[in-house]
Amino acid sequence: MNEFDLIRRFFANISYGDKRVVVGIGDDGACMDIPDGKQLVVSCDTLVSGVHFRADWSPYDIASRVIRVNVSDMAAMGATPAWITLALTLPSNDVPWLTSFSRGICDTMARYNLALVGGDTTRGPLTITATVHGLVEKNKALRRDGAKSGDKIYVTGKLGGAGLAVAFLDKKLPNPQHKRILMDALLHPEPRVDLSVYLQRYATAAIDISDGLSGDLNHILVASGVGACIEQQSIPVHPLVETYQTSQAVDFTLSAGDDYALCFTVSPHNEQALLAALAKAQKRVYCIGSIEKQGGLRMQYTNGEIRALKPQGYSHF
Amino acid sequence: MNEFDLIRRFFANISYGDKRVVVGIGDDGACMDIPDGKQLVVSCDTLVSGVHFRADWSPYDIASRVIRVNVSDMAAMGATPAWITLALTLPSNDVPWLTSFSRGICDTMARYNLALVGGDTTRGPLTITATVHGLVEKNKALRRDGAKSGDKIYVTGKLGGAGLAVAFLDKKLPNPQHKRILMDALLHPEPRVDLSVYLQRYATAAIDISDGLSGDLNHILVASGVGACIEQQSIPVHPLVETYQTSQAVDFTLSAGDDYALCFTVSPHNEQALLAALAKAQKRVYCIGSIEKQGGLRMQYTNGEIRALKPQGYSHF
Repeated sequence: MNEFDLIRRFFANISYGDKRVVVGIGDDGACMDIPDGKQLVVSCDTLVSGVHFRADWSPYDIASRVIRVNVSDMAAMGATPAWITLALTLPSNDVPWLTSFSRGICDTMARYNLALVGGDTTRGPLTITATVHGLVEKNKALRRDGAKSGDKIYVTGKLGGAGLAVAFLDKKLPNPQHKRILMDALLHPEPRVDLSVYLQRYATAAIDISDGLSGDLNHILVASGVGACIEQQSIPVHPLVETYQTSQAVDFTLSAGDDYALCFTVSPHNEQALLAALAKAQKRVYCIGSIEKQGGLRMQYTNGEIRALKPQGYSHF
Repeated sequence: MNEFDLIRRFFANISYGDKRVVVGIGDDGACMDIPDGKQLVVSCDTLVSGVHFRADWSPYDIASRVIRVNVSDMAAMGATPAWITLALTLPSNDVPWLTSFSRGICDTMARYNLALVGGDTTRGPLTITATVHGLVEKNKALRRDGAKSGDKIYVTGKLGGAGLAVAFLDKKLPNPQHKRILMDALLHPEPRVDLSVYLQRYATAAIDISDGLSGDLNHILVASGVGACIEQQSIPVHPLVETYQTSQAVDFTLSAGDDYALCFTVSPHNEQALLAALAKAQKRVYCIGSIEKQGGLRMQYTNGEIRALKPQGYSHF
């Protein structure tokens, strides 16, 4: 099986008849129609074996994670995901591995109405880069630089579960069900594209929490030229982080990555309209603090004290 | 220096004020305006250290090659390159390496009017994936599946130089100037985007020759459901391939990759108009044979004999 057979066998048919795709897999490039009134949003993420995943994980799960973390960037931009290209560097053409991997790609792409439009397969150390393309209403893309003093800061889910899974990777937990819940948070994070329609309309800035809340919120602060104060007691902590980290639960959560919840800001003027729309759609979000004029990140502790908070999070270098 | 500093220091400023870029590097995704009447063309290519380049090559040259091979896919689609995302997996944050690499990226992108709009930096074995985005007039993308019986087959340059460079990588040549010419063909191939405007109008199918003429032409034949006969004496062979391969020069050229010339087909009806337009623009192309109804690839040898030709070229697996 050469690389052309490999693409034909495992990847050529993942396109779902998207009528905007004029030329799909199998040419020098894919060609797509961009509907009137839309702008293109592009993002890419690489997952490296031994860094972002372990080589002995199920290829299905690795594939699921690749697609989900990429789709999450579309959610953070308020965009609707549309197309993906997949650059796959493989040590060998291991058919069982590829069968499971391509099934994971296929199922996860179907979940988000994505079409695979192209890619590249090369031989080398296992590395996967997906580039995802989405569409957003003209000039409605959510940026990091729009937060203003007085805006409220929200996150879209309980945090720390995926981070705890990473911390416990080599640890057997007394309750195996807990291990399963945490690994599921790590392997199958839910990119919040369901919120794009609301956030695009009301939010002033957004980011997805891939490297940790304090570090990712700080990206918004730096880009927007503002500061923030968050409340210790308002940080929504994953229940198992409460269980296993007890007194350190919030500290752990602030620097825990991989959850892919969104952190967004909204002006007080639009806050009620957004909350009403989200409540109607039964989407839960958590207010964690406010944007302030004074630069830097601060936290108000449960005892009322306010202290500077050093943004922390994952960095490759 | 963490990964955010790394991006800021080496890559944040490669955008050239492209007004179609609404959001560039530094957000969760880039956002671009697609001009009316255009379609988006997307392609990606991965270069792996030890496979597509040697780790001890100049980072400037590696960068140049990454951009050029990606841009070549745009040329093969008849598209004008516009934007690139760059996924960079690095063993360490080696500042001199990154300085040279980013200078190569910057210079090569400027050459093709490309803006860097996003990417990802991760730690791992040196691997580089670029995803290039281009624009093409609506429904004018050049495909592989449009060749028809009777069409003439052309290539856009002399072939085999880059392949000879690969064959001679570990060899000292008697004439060091020859070595430089060959390495230049390998490291700095010229993607033929200058031909997009002509081919988009007149060609019926096109591909870029990355894996070897016989293999790449065969992709057109299979996609178009046709066959072809090419003439041995018409294959434009790089002069140094003539010098070093003498009697095997054409055979060598048929399976030599990495040149990134284009192979295209044109109907007899449009051939003269295309040749006139190209001649006016002082662009040289070489007719190498014709598309035939009968499937498969054949070659007419200088003695008049016609024999089947097995398509050959590089495959990773």
